[in-house]
Amino acid sequence: MGEKGLLIVVSGPSGAGKGTVCQEYLNSNSETFLSVSMTTRLPRRGEIDGVDYYFTDIDSFKGLVDEGGFLEYARVYDNYYGTPKNIVRENLLKGKDVLLEIDIQGALQVKERFEEGVFIFIVPPTMEELKNRIVGRGTETAEELLKRFKSSYEELNFITRYNYLVVNDNVKDASDRIKSIIIAEKCRVDRNKNFYRRLREGVCDDISFFG
Amino acid sequence: MGEKGLLIVVSGPSGAGKGTVCQEYLNSNSETFLSVSMTTRLPRRGEIDGVDYYFTDIDSFKGLVDEGGFLEYARVYDNYYGTPKNIVRENLLKGKDVLLEIDIQGALQVKERFEEGVFIFIVPPTMEELKNRIVGRGTETAEELLKRFKSSYEELNFITRYNYLVVNDNVKDASDRIKSIIIAEKCRVDRNKNFYRRLREGVCDDISFFG
Repeated sequence: MGEKGLLIVVSGPSGAGKGTVCQEYLNSNSETFLSVSMTTRLPRRGEIDGVDYYFTDIDSFKGLVDEGGFLEYARVYDNYYGTPKNIVRENLLKGKDVLLEIDIQGALQVKERFEEGVFIFIVPPTMEELKNRIVGRGTETAEELLKRFKSSYEELNFITRYNYLVVNDNVKDASDRIKSIIIAEKCRVDRNKNFYRRLREGVCDDISFFG
Repeated sequence: MGEKGLLIVVSGPSGAGKGTVCQEYLNSNSETFLSVSMTTRLPRRGEIDGVDYYFTDIDSFKGLVDEGGFLEYARVYDNYYGTPKNIVRENLLKGKDVLLEIDIQGALQVKERFEEGVFIFIVPPTMEELKNRIVGRGTETAEELLKRFKSSYEELNFITRYNYLVVNDNVKDASDRIKSIIIAEKCRVDRNKNFYRRLREGVCDDISFFG
């Protein structure tokens, strides 16, 4: 079943913990390929090309944009960030699932170009909990926190554009739910047309068996 | 999440092993309610009312048909068989999942009346395997076997009316896939509108926290 891999797009509001959930998922599903973004910003200390990002220059990035080489991209201040299409496609064709942990704007772009992806929205169990998590980071002023919280709140509006909503009440449970979603998606009838065709074709020589 | 239970409709061609898979599922998911059919045929030795079937008479059965009291029903020779709607609904409202193991014609009737059900089609891994299973029963003549096999083959045409296709290569694995499907379905955004609404409403009193 499911000859091709699945593109799993995980996003959610700031503070919902999508990064931790994705890491947990990758730890227990090591055959899943994590998509790495390409960026024009300079590497920070310790960042490795091809692991943290693919680092490139603006001209190459724009060239790739013109070729339609990104599943999504965005400019953030003076830097570009994007998801190169080729590496995702190669892995999917090899039968590997590809995980894309990405912000909401990026996810919506991917959805336009790759509708057959599985779009998962990670949410906190309550807004109270989201607040605690945002405060827990402890690196920001009250104003910054409020801004972040309001922005997360606004982002909840995009839930309806996703296929699945996964509550991150507990990282392990949330990761297990994603696993179930992937197993289920691979059982979807519309993803198994080839299997179904082969099953029916397999009968032709057999039917004489009984006669 | 998922306040209401799910109606899980499992069917598939004769010989695919849907009965065994459903039994395995119920054994490991004891909180799931198995729907029991109602019939006008007489109880056979050892059959228990309310367990194997709800036994009733033709007038009562037809009365219930007229009231729209069945999710599906059929006449087989001189007897009627059907799935009473009330018991299913009561359990779903209590938050219980309800499993309906049913033939394809019945499943298609249920789909017309209860679109939000989860429709699962159990298939053998190959038609060769289906043949072996049908022959393995050893109670029928070659002609009867051929007829049964051809009928199973025709039934494969209905796969496309289902949401999920579960290959019964191994009973435990097939049952686990159904479990994943149920978990995934409960994460579907369109099944969680209430959760999402509550999550957004929960914010109103909180936002002053930061200021």
